[in-house]
Amino acid sequence: MSGKVVAVAGATGVVGRQMLLTLEARNFPVSRIKCLASARSLGRTVPFKGEEIPVEVLSEDSFEGVDIALFSAGGGTSKKFAPAAAGAGAVVIDNSSAWRMDPEVPLVVPEVNPEAIKTHKGIIANPNCSTIQMVVVLKPLHDAARIRRVVVSTYQAVSGAGSAAINELLEQSRALLSEQPYPPKVFPHQIAFNCIPQIPQSNAFEDNGYTNEEMKMVNETKKIIGDYSIAVTATTVRVPVLSGHSESVNVETEKKLTADEARALLSKAPGVVVEDDLPAQRYPLAVNAVGKYDTYVGRIREDISHPSALDMWIVSDNLLKGAALNAVQIAEQLL
Amino acid sequence: MSGKVVAVAGATGVVGRQMLLTLEARNFPVSRIKCLASARSLGRTVPFKGEEIPVEVLSEDSFEGVDIALFSAGGGTSKKFAPAAAGAGAVVIDNSSAWRMDPEVPLVVPEVNPEAIKTHKGIIANPNCSTIQMVVVLKPLHDAARIRRVVVSTYQAVSGAGSAAINELLEQSRALLSEQPYPPKVFPHQIAFNCIPQIPQSNAFEDNGYTNEEMKMVNETKKIIGDYSIAVTATTVRVPVLSGHSESVNVETEKKLTADEARALLSKAPGVVVEDDLPAQRYPLAVNAVGKYDTYVGRIREDISHPSALDMWIVSDNLLKGAALNAVQIAEQLL
Repeated sequence: MSGKVVAVAGATGVVGRQMLLTLEARNFPVSRIKCLASARSLGRTVPFKGEEIPVEVLSEDSFEGVDIALFSAGGGTSKKFAPAAAGAGAVVIDNSSAWRMDPEVPLVVPEVNPEAIKTHKGIIANPNCSTIQMVVVLKPLHDAARIRRVVVSTYQAVSGAGSAAINELLEQSRALLSEQPYPPKVFPHQIAFNCIPQIPQSNAFEDNGYTNEEMKMVNETKKIIGDYSIAVTATTVRVPVLSGHSESVNVETEKKLTADEARALLSKAPGVVVEDDLPAQRYPLAVNAVGKYDTYVGRIREDISHPSALDMWIVSDNLLKGAALNAVQIAEQLL
Repeated sequence: MSGKVVAVAGATGVVGRQMLLTLEARNFPVSRIKCLASARSLGRTVPFKGEEIPVEVLSEDSFEGVDIALFSAGGGTSKKFAPAAAGAGAVVIDNSSAWRMDPEVPLVVPEVNPEAIKTHKGIIANPNCSTIQMVVVLKPLHDAARIRRVVVSTYQAVSGAGSAAINELLEQSRALLSEQPYPPKVFPHQIAFNCIPQIPQSNAFEDNGYTNEEMKMVNETKKIIGDYSIAVTATTVRVPVLSGHSESVNVETEKKLTADEARALLSKAPGVVVEDDLPAQRYPLAVNAVGKYDTYVGRIREDISHPSALDMWIVSDNLLKGAALNAVQIAEQLL
């Protein structure tokens, strides 16, 4: 059987499982799959193409004969094992933030900067979920009208924080609906029926008062679009949604775009679906985006506070386009 | 007993009940209370100061001898009955949007423009919930540094849409957690575990693509602060939170303010509490703001995308400062 030997590091995690499902759903040519995880997952199996694949413990020796290694096991694991995988001849597509801002590592969204893939030296970084869905929409606008500044506020689902976070939202919601207490464990505060203006929950932040997630949106947007003159500010917020990130995005452009022009540009953009009919109450919704490959954009309107800006609402499945799908699309480009 | 004869029109609604509670909690001098509602509520009683007050049917004759009439019964009811109340000698404090943009009607947030109260001709308008909590924070910044532009994205609780909306979030959440369907009735789409970028749910919008709620934030902000040169754009979003509106606000100022300067200004601002310590994971949260009179602001930081702008996160109880409390504060100013 022809095809690639593919390893998934972090195969038991929320994103790792989506990577396996996406490889399968897109019929990626896999000759052999290796499912890697930490020793904690030893003895478990994960499903792939109707088989139960036993989990192997991730080590520096895991990558012999591997063509493509999809990593989604956290930044520390990527930092430690991605060089070994690349050294063994695999191309690593890494979903963590470990390598994203490394000038030697391309940071890729295939619809936006596929050409960057060719520059890789063994590691390709998959961007942050909230950045990916924003840049697939921003890129065609930038090409047409040159973006000067972006002000984004996010409405991010808990699935981006892993399966324990999903469980916490579900169980905490259930408890509160029964007037039972459910103290937060994963999140720093109650997430059920609340909004938390801090991502990640591990409380990583910078001296300028921005959280790490916010600075990812700032820095990764510039690197992916390849224009460091684009100014970005972000406020990233966790909301009680299971999956599907929503974003309220204000985009200032050098050349004025009308809402109709923006809709026309975005209607032709790869991976983007314009869903924009307010009178019919049609606009992107997180619950509708789950399980879909596309990024949805709506509520597009000319900003009445600025001579040349647009407001819009962007939604995508954070586990798919925001993580697993984008990684698999990069792998497809490598073929 | 000295005091005022106070009528509450819409006394059985979510905001009407909060008005009664707030009058009681703040010890407003009430000699007699009249609880008015539509004929649907006839036979019901509402509690006030330990008594059960029978609901009277709202009519043009309801306001004989009334000193202050607090209205929260929808725009149509206000349009119809507020002139009659004012004609009978009552001062109407109206929580609907019916009179807010009338140039003859003051639109008042007591911490921001108390002097406007004196200009009333029988009707005083209480601003939109999401506007009130924003302007109490913006005003001290405007006084110090002159605001040029505001870009706001809201995270609005369902209680702003009334008791049926609260019930829908609770029952829909419960149903979905049990994998049962619960089709939307109040909201145009599923609200449990979802975000809806459309307020109001009645689908009122303008030709420019903004919803009515968004245009309220735009227009009311200018009128309350009394400066029509302030540019505002808003994206208003319903989130699955029971009570407490959150707002991500970007504020461009003529004079640059540092985050420390903004915190210092806001620490002295009436009705505002600065809650801003990201390393300690302290910032405003909807669930903490419920039942409180103050507006909370945090995540204050200098916008790295602009030479003179700030990002911040503003939270308040939409039923209190956003509605009932602000109305009662106006009544207090009238005394």
